[in-house]
Amino acid sequence: MPGPLSSAGAAVAADPLPSWNDGPTKQSIFSFVEKVTREGSPFFVPVPERIATFDNDGTLWCETPVPVQVYFALDRVKALAPQNPEWTTREPFASLLKGDLKATLAGGDHALLEIVMATHAGMTTAEFGRIVEDWIATAKHPQTGKLFTEMTYVPMLELLAYLLANGFKNFIVSGGGIEFLRQWGERIYGVPPEQVIGSSIKTQFEMRDGKPVLMRLPQLSFNNDKADKPVAINQHIGRWPIAAFGNSVGDQQMLEYTQGGSGVRFGLLVLHDDAAREYAYGPAQGLPSPQLGAFTPALYEQAKTAGWTVVSMKDDWKQVFPVEPSPVTAINILLEPDATTPEDPVIDPLLIDYVSTFVPTSSGEHFDPHVTTGIAPRDYLDRMLAEPFELFTFSPAGAAVYQLGQCGTAAKKLHAWGLKRQGGVAAE
Amino acid sequence: MPGPLSSAGAAVAADPLPSWNDGPTKQSIFSFVEKVTREGSPFFVPVPERIATFDNDGTLWCETPVPVQVYFALDRVKALAPQNPEWTTREPFASLLKGDLKATLAGGDHALLEIVMATHAGMTTAEFGRIVEDWIATAKHPQTGKLFTEMTYVPMLELLAYLLANGFKNFIVSGGGIEFLRQWGERIYGVPPEQVIGSSIKTQFEMRDGKPVLMRLPQLSFNNDKADKPVAINQHIGRWPIAAFGNSVGDQQMLEYTQGGSGVRFGLLVLHDDAAREYAYGPAQGLPSPQLGAFTPALYEQAKTAGWTVVSMKDDWKQVFPVEPSPVTAINILLEPDATTPEDPVIDPLLIDYVSTFVPTSSGEHFDPHVTTGIAPRDYLDRMLAEPFELFTFSPAGAAVYQLGQCGTAAKKLHAWGLKRQGGVAAE
Repeated sequence: MPGPLSSAGAAVAADPLPSWNDGPTKQSIFSFVEKVTREGSPFFVPVPERIATFDNDGTLWCETPVPVQVYFALDRVKALAPQNPEWTTREPFASLLKGDLKATLAGGDHALLEIVMATHAGMTTAEFGRIVEDWIATAKHPQTGKLFTEMTYVPMLELLAYLLANGFKNFIVSGGGIEFLRQWGERIYGVPPEQVIGSSIKTQFEMRDGKPVLMRLPQLSFNNDKADKPVAINQHIGRWPIAAFGNSVGDQQMLEYTQGGSGVRFGLLVLHDDAAREYAYGPAQGLPSPQLGAFTPALYEQAKTAGWTVVSMKDDWKQVFPVEPSPVTAINILLEPDATTPEDPVIDPLLIDYVSTFVPTSSGEHFDPHVTTGIAPRDYLDRMLAEPFELFTFSPAGAAVYQLGQCGTAAKKLHAWGLKRQGGVAAE
Repeated sequence: MPGPLSSAGAAVAADPLPSWNDGPTKQSIFSFVEKVTREGSPFFVPVPERIATFDNDGTLWCETPVPVQVYFALDRVKALAPQNPEWTTREPFASLLKGDLKATLAGGDHALLEIVMATHAGMTTAEFGRIVEDWIATAKHPQTGKLFTEMTYVPMLELLAYLLANGFKNFIVSGGGIEFLRQWGERIYGVPPEQVIGSSIKTQFEMRDGKPVLMRLPQLSFNNDKADKPVAINQHIGRWPIAAFGNSVGDQQMLEYTQGGSGVRFGLLVLHDDAAREYAYGPAQGLPSPQLGAFTPALYEQAKTAGWTVVSMKDDWKQVFPVEPSPVTAINILLEPDATTPEDPVIDPLLIDYVSTFVPTSSGEHFDPHVTTGIAPRDYLDRMLAEPFELFTFSPAGAAVYQLGQCGTAAKKLHAWGLKRQGGVAAE
């Protein structure tokens, strides 16, 4: 009779990071979160100061063989090529149109910038948003054939949800374009647009046909990489992060900056050493060198000295990518609106686990019809169960879909249907 | 026996904007908020999209005779003058050191920029923060003798709290310096650093004595005024505001941009027409022209055409400045942590009113010791009161200070003291 989440005691057994193998890496995350969230801890950090920053490419989703936004630029170049016939012979466009992404990247920042300006500017912010939205809905990874949005790392999604559940505000601090990321960051990561920081081009306010628009200009405004990441974090957030997550030399200064604050700080770097399930690149640990997103031996040494956690994708992650695309993820359900309350700021890890695994374990043939009568302390429940119980009949009076709140309670009604009574007595 | 906030029905009579006179201005605010927050309304806006942007100088606090940050620059110039002897004869410093602020401002943007670079750069962001914090704690308005932080507009503080209570996220979008405002914006307005947008100078990441710092450079990064306010709003928030609040031509494009989104939008401009309680300047409505912060006749006409609300400080506000400084404001209490929950996203206006007026009406000689036993629906309470009641004795077992939650419940324990029992029986 108790609902699936109402059995006391089970919460301690639930694992908010089920895709992480047990060991020092996973333990370092739990240890940090415990230190900064436990009241009375000498390292306790109040909720508003629990700022976490995440790199995107190579940290939250796959950036190999080239970052996703390069494929976007490629498709834009193809779409715009008829209006720009000179591109077939002019670099960097010529290589790109031939599909030779490595040659394109070999042109360096200058070539990339030229491509970005030719493909990301010249329209309003709203128009650009729609272009990205349409593209990301169907664009697929050239080697796996999966949607790019299915090439996110499940362990990192769990980490985002775990931190959020512990009162953290997660920011994405990406070298990629801010307006590119904002189109899908909320849906995929549960991170709202105002918590996305990225590289940007200049925009200009104009009235067009009596309507205010922001025109995207072909001029770089900010390149959010390396030593400029702390600059952008300060500009955008105005607080020092207490935790930072990255995967390459582009994130070094973000981790250094985070560690510079007083108190306990947490830095984590993902090492891509899993050729079987993703890609293997370093050049740290003798892995091959990538064109972009290098994890150098020097960074590896610095991580050891600084006490940053290095994640071995191969050893520390049970699972890399989502097993099957699901339109509903734990993050989607839990993050908006935030299920926490001031009185109860921590989302029960059991709830996250329950939602994450609901479809395979509790739906379809595994669906178990049951009636939840409420949530109660164990001793109250024991007394109630010991009392005499008279059978009675009831039938449903209506059906509704709810967003889950703490303890699996039905927190917010999303939709309700009335039912015609066909017999039985509706329990009031 | 019911607590001060538990009487049902009283909430509808409470006014969340008690310092606003009744009339079309106040009504326009209520009408907008009702339209976008009532479920089922054709203009309903989901909570995450309820973005409101507020100008600061002249909108949230007094900017006359010159904006507060000019006094800060003046005091910095005085402090730094011994190291810069040439300033006594070099403009714009010479005028400033003589206390002739009008002559200083007459030097225009170029003069102001030179002063800002000389006084706001050359230190780390942390050092600058401490300088501002120390200054704002004691700096006083030259004509009223009140702390600058007591020269905020009470009706606008009520408006910030009212919007927050209705699920809005308030951003400050100021022409003033972003790092200047962030030092006190959370304490005074309840707006956290990550929701403050302002003008900025460049910063640079450096390691100094092995510690990461951001050095403030004497170069303008962004001048957040006029047509650049929408640019900054898009860069920082990535969503269109649905409400914008200003007082001058510097806010025109922010209001235009806000109105450009689809659905119901709200624009409001404060007209300073109250020489008796604050200052009177326009030049709209035949008022005198100010050096900065002009509300032009053209802007006034545009407001009429666009349907923006124009606040007459004289006629629409019962009160302008706080009557007495209070270390605890409704905003401080309500805003952090947010007392709303997904199930109950709107803070009861009665609660805001109760906290706002607590000190004069319920403390000291007006303190009424009482016991609150809980909150219950009226019919439950009636049944309980009709039952026989046996007297019993009790005494306090402890004392604690709580942050209020919905319905005046004790939501979050801030501090507790144990009491030694001196007689009586503690009720368990």
